[in-house]
Amino acid sequence: MANNDTIVALATATGSGAIAVIRLSGSEAIPIVNRVFKGKDLAMQASHTVHFGTIRDGDDMLDEVLVSLFIAPHSYTKEDVVEISTHNSKYIIERIIQLLIKQGGRAARPGEFTLRAFLNGRMDLSQAEAVADLIASTSAASHQVAMQQMRGGFSNELKSLREQLIQFASLVELELDFSEEDVEFANRDQLEALIVDIHAVIRKLIGSFEQGNVLKNGVPVVIAGKPNVGKSTLLNTLLNEERAIVSDIAGTTRDTIEDEINVGGVTFRFIDTAGIRDTQDLVEAKGVERTREKMRQARLIIYLADPQQDNLDEITDQISEIAQLGVPFVVVVNKTDLLHAEHRELLSKLDPLFISAKNNTGVEELKEALLRKVNLHHLDAGDVVVTNIRHVEALRKTENSLERVLEGIDGAVTSDFLAMDIRQALHHLGEITGSVSTDDLLENIFSKFCIGK
Amino acid sequence: MANNDTIVALATATGSGAIAVIRLSGSEAIPIVNRVFKGKDLAMQASHTVHFGTIRDGDDMLDEVLVSLFIAPHSYTKEDVVEISTHNSKYIIERIIQLLIKQGGRAARPGEFTLRAFLNGRMDLSQAEAVADLIASTSAASHQVAMQQMRGGFSNELKSLREQLIQFASLVELELDFSEEDVEFANRDQLEALIVDIHAVIRKLIGSFEQGNVLKNGVPVVIAGKPNVGKSTLLNTLLNEERAIVSDIAGTTRDTIEDEINVGGVTFRFIDTAGIRDTQDLVEAKGVERTREKMRQARLIIYLADPQQDNLDEITDQISEIAQLGVPFVVVVNKTDLLHAEHRELLSKLDPLFISAKNNTGVEELKEALLRKVNLHHLDAGDVVVTNIRHVEALRKTENSLERVLEGIDGAVTSDFLAMDIRQALHHLGEITGSVSTDDLLENIFSKFCIGK
Repeated sequence: MANNDTIVALATATGSGAIAVIRLSGSEAIPIVNRVFKGKDLAMQASHTVHFGTIRDGDDMLDEVLVSLFIAPHSYTKEDVVEISTHNSKYIIERIIQLLIKQGGRAARPGEFTLRAFLNGRMDLSQAEAVADLIASTSAASHQVAMQQMRGGFSNELKSLREQLIQFASLVELELDFSEEDVEFANRDQLEALIVDIHAVIRKLIGSFEQGNVLKNGVPVVIAGKPNVGKSTLLNTLLNEERAIVSDIAGTTRDTIEDEINVGGVTFRFIDTAGIRDTQDLVEAKGVERTREKMRQARLIIYLADPQQDNLDEITDQISEIAQLGVPFVVVVNKTDLLHAEHRELLSKLDPLFISAKNNTGVEELKEALLRKVNLHHLDAGDVVVTNIRHVEALRKTENSLERVLEGIDGAVTSDFLAMDIRQALHHLGEITGSVSTDDLLENIFSKFCIGK
Repeated sequence: MANNDTIVALATATGSGAIAVIRLSGSEAIPIVNRVFKGKDLAMQASHTVHFGTIRDGDDMLDEVLVSLFIAPHSYTKEDVVEISTHNSKYIIERIIQLLIKQGGRAARPGEFTLRAFLNGRMDLSQAEAVADLIASTSAASHQVAMQQMRGGFSNELKSLREQLIQFASLVELELDFSEEDVEFANRDQLEALIVDIHAVIRKLIGSFEQGNVLKNGVPVVIAGKPNVGKSTLLNTLLNEERAIVSDIAGTTRDTIEDEINVGGVTFRFIDTAGIRDTQDLVEAKGVERTREKMRQARLIIYLADPQQDNLDEITDQISEIAQLGVPFVVVVNKTDLLHAEHRELLSKLDPLFISAKNNTGVEELKEALLRKVNLHHLDAGDVVVTNIRHVEALRKTENSLERVLEGIDGAVTSDFLAMDIRQALHHLGEITGSVSTDDLLENIFSKFCIGK
């Protein structure tokens, strides 16, 4: 999979913008650019310097550019890297990339720069994957876990576990050479204690996945309630506040994200289901199952009632329907501004939140309630959270192997079986960081990257 | 209008991409970044160097970045400029821009970096305008004229004219101080010769606008012909070839441009008119005028005939209808593969191009004919072409003033009138390069730029 040819790609987004950056990596990066760059001899320049000049295709001046040099191994890929900052014209970008390819470059595949960074030891596989997560991050929480992972937090945690395990594996394997003599180089009690420790860490990491997944992908929420209780008004109230915050930020154009809000750094993603719009189905025969299914998939349900429309019995019935789904839910009484005191007292038995979506009262309290309900532990800077399905699968396989090791120790199996299970656990741990990898695995991971990264 | 505060903006496009560049310009650019950058003391670094480190908002690590320094006056704006290369995550970009604003930066207005480059004398106004044209350029021709203008070709041509004229203006104005004495410091014959020279250059520049406009905005083309003669097949054949070329270019995603093709570096823009799809209107009462209007606005008409459908008389009638519009046109006979030899001979009297849009025969010849018909002079690298409507208007006003100067010389008017007209001509010339400018003019020009440029 590793090639040492020189790859070329646009590294910035396409669309309206002032500048674009074209990136090259490989042993020929500097000579290739040098042949078309007029201004200075790039071969004579130091690493981490920037040079103004023009890019020429024969007599044709393509652009005035800034060229930055990163000389191996002091670059992202540990190869020679050149970044050309051009005017952001599609025409110019295309012409320059074509020119660089004509001069010996090759169009980079998606993620190929980061693949090279991995293959050349700049980062391990889980860090490389975090680069893509970091680019995709849209909230404080998803950003924090991606950054943590990219900076190697996850890798470090695994690395020390793996190193301890390797030591024992070696000792156990050493016993195989002396299998006639019935020696135990690896103290079984110590081994058992270590495996129990590692097992606990692995379980904790697996356990963090639910939270990690929520942080990365957002909390799926269904707003349930009969028609006209104010579901879309509530959603709009939540979304509009968010939009106002977003449009306050100068200098960036943010694509409108429909039906997503950010509360305390966590993304709540409202699932568009018939169930949201048509929840009378809940108490009807037809369509009930489909709606229930959508609600079961949610991580959280907001049950919205309108006291002008629904009496206490109806509301109580609907709440017990929802409670049977086993999904955390929040009971919210809307249109509170129109509520009589005695009615309010009656409803209070349900311990609801009283809001007026229209008048934007009680909405902040609702947001706090949402945060409490998803029950995310506060993440400290050092906390390691698993967000990647591939990682959690490898961790589960590691867990299984570790459990077999423990069973083996208890059953006093022979060293060779023990060694095999330990090796298996090491293999699965290694898959996460890429110390064990296959071309297929790498292809699968990096093909999801964007070109230029 | 000039502020010396420090401006901040995203300089790259938003959307999918690997990296983004945030740009700052102003006296505080380096201190502002230095306060949030961990890795090195940026204040101690040389111009045109790149530094790896992290951006932190308190304890919160926002990203690993590369920071490039350009120390005044060796930068685009002639102020201190810092470029921060980040991962291309909207979340990260927003957080970093907010942080930089909190540290004392201000969100840049559209084009404000280039406005500063102009105000600080890095470039004149026509060069600044060319930066926007360069970014918008989509063809070799539009790119070439923008590059030429950005590199100062146009400005240089005007500058020497203006300097010669200023000398004479001074001499004529000097005469005003001696008005009692009836002296002539400015030789009237030499002045007249100069004005005639300048007038000729200005007329040439005005004359280049038609070509410049076509190069910049493309050649509007209408494909006319009765239904089912193969108009859309022809358009698709032309467009598909173009698309194939575009999709060949690795590393960039090009937005699909409907109904535009690039021939020999010139963009042909097919105008979507009822006239294209419904040109039997041409020979009917209803709708004829509207269709004619569309065709008149075109710079070129392709008249497409189907010999299976139309007889020679019909075709001849339609051609003479089109000829009356006064727009260059090409007669094209489609479905040539089905044509009998004697029919072909008959049609040859019309001197048409024989093509088969479906089989893609004759299409190259058609493209060559399109290029010939628009009759663009080949542009040499040094040719100055006016592409900007503002410039051509200023040139026309200059022309008028110069003509009044010539009339004044002929009519032997007094020095004060002559001086006034020369000053007027100088004023209009100065508007082009910005040696004469108003806040309104600058606002109008730079507000059309993108943010970050």
